[in-house]
Amino acid sequence: MRRPRRKAEETRDDILVTAEALLRKKGISGFSIADLAGELQMSPANVFKHFQSKAVLADAICDRHISHMIGRFQAFDEPAPAPERLAIVVRKLMEAHLADIRENPFLFEMLVVMSEANLPSGRHYKELIENLFSDLIRHGISSGVYTCSADTPINRTVASAFASVLHPVFLIGGDEEELRERCTALAELVNAALQKPLAK
Amino acid sequence: MRRPRRKAEETRDDILVTAEALLRKKGISGFSIADLAGELQMSPANVFKHFQSKAVLADAICDRHISHMIGRFQAFDEPAPAPERLAIVVRKLMEAHLADIRENPFLFEMLVVMSEANLPSGRHYKELIENLFSDLIRHGISSGVYTCSADTPINRTVASAFASVLHPVFLIGGDEEELRERCTALAELVNAALQKPLAK
Repeated sequence: MRRPRRKAEETRDDILVTAEALLRKKGISGFSIADLAGELQMSPANVFKHFQSKAVLADAICDRHISHMIGRFQAFDEPAPAPERLAIVVRKLMEAHLADIRENPFLFEMLVVMSEANLPSGRHYKELIENLFSDLIRHGISSGVYTCSADTPINRTVASAFASVLHPVFLIGGDEEELRERCTALAELVNAALQKPLAK
Repeated sequence: MRRPRRKAEETRDDILVTAEALLRKKGISGFSIADLAGELQMSPANVFKHFQSKAVLADAICDRHISHMIGRFQAFDEPAPAPERLAIVVRKLMEAHLADIRENPFLFEMLVVMSEANLPSGRHYKELIENLFSDLIRHGISSGVYTCSADTPINRTVASAFASVLHPVFLIGGDEEELRERCTALAELVNAALQKPLAK
């Protein structure tokens, strides 16, 4: 029973890798499911079996790209004290988006469009970011630098505070220098808050 | 010399008022400059003399609407202490946007589209919000509640921190209950930061 399921997952991965390559080259409207199936030497029906529509395929490409990107930023990789660590991780995440804008404009434009619809990939991105902040804040509390309480959904609030430097909508067309300054200033603001118990 | 200039400004205002009424009823694509001119009993050429394109007209409608809206939120109208005052003003601003989404969906949708392009109305909105925060923070410093320095561009950073509850892109399609919780939590975070000197 296990062999066919692994086969299906492999096919799904093959489709995603090829679709992402086409997307990077031509944009999402630059290829059809038939083109994609031709490239993979399979029938369009087989592609549709794995992705019911092009929107579902686009969502899956975004999700794959985002998960890879955030996977590279494990909060515990930075050896700095918590406040610095938080500033570094946010900055690196923003820079990864900015690099995408330069190097994969088609992919990033699709991220922007998808992030405005309420889609699984967008919700997953939010969750990954919130987990990243959760780890950073927990580290700050356990090392005695952050004095905020860990049981409030503070990680979600911190993620919201960084929306204007981490959300694709704000990054596209933004001035890079201004974004970098804003990123540093927001990290200072958030670090100041986390080092003072929140008033009830 | 002054009379004709005032006349031109009055005509401009007339055009804007009528255009906003048409927009609220039919959406920006639901009427032409010819329809608008007909409504005003003037020639389309006369409308174009004041607004070179429909995009310029749309930008002016947004700007007028935003200026009126923010004009209603003078920071000094709230008699509460600075941190509460900040929370109240942000909440009221967000609620004004949410009311627009319910009552003037065509206008708000246009605000979303315009806010994504880098247009004068968007820059003006940003400036008005930053000034509002500047007043709120100065009041907090002068009353001894906020300990941050007034000479850093902290008002700009605070405005950025609230982007996810004040920027039209985040409000459209957002869950109202979630937005209200986020708004309160962000105000707590920002108030905590402003009550602690920012680390350099």
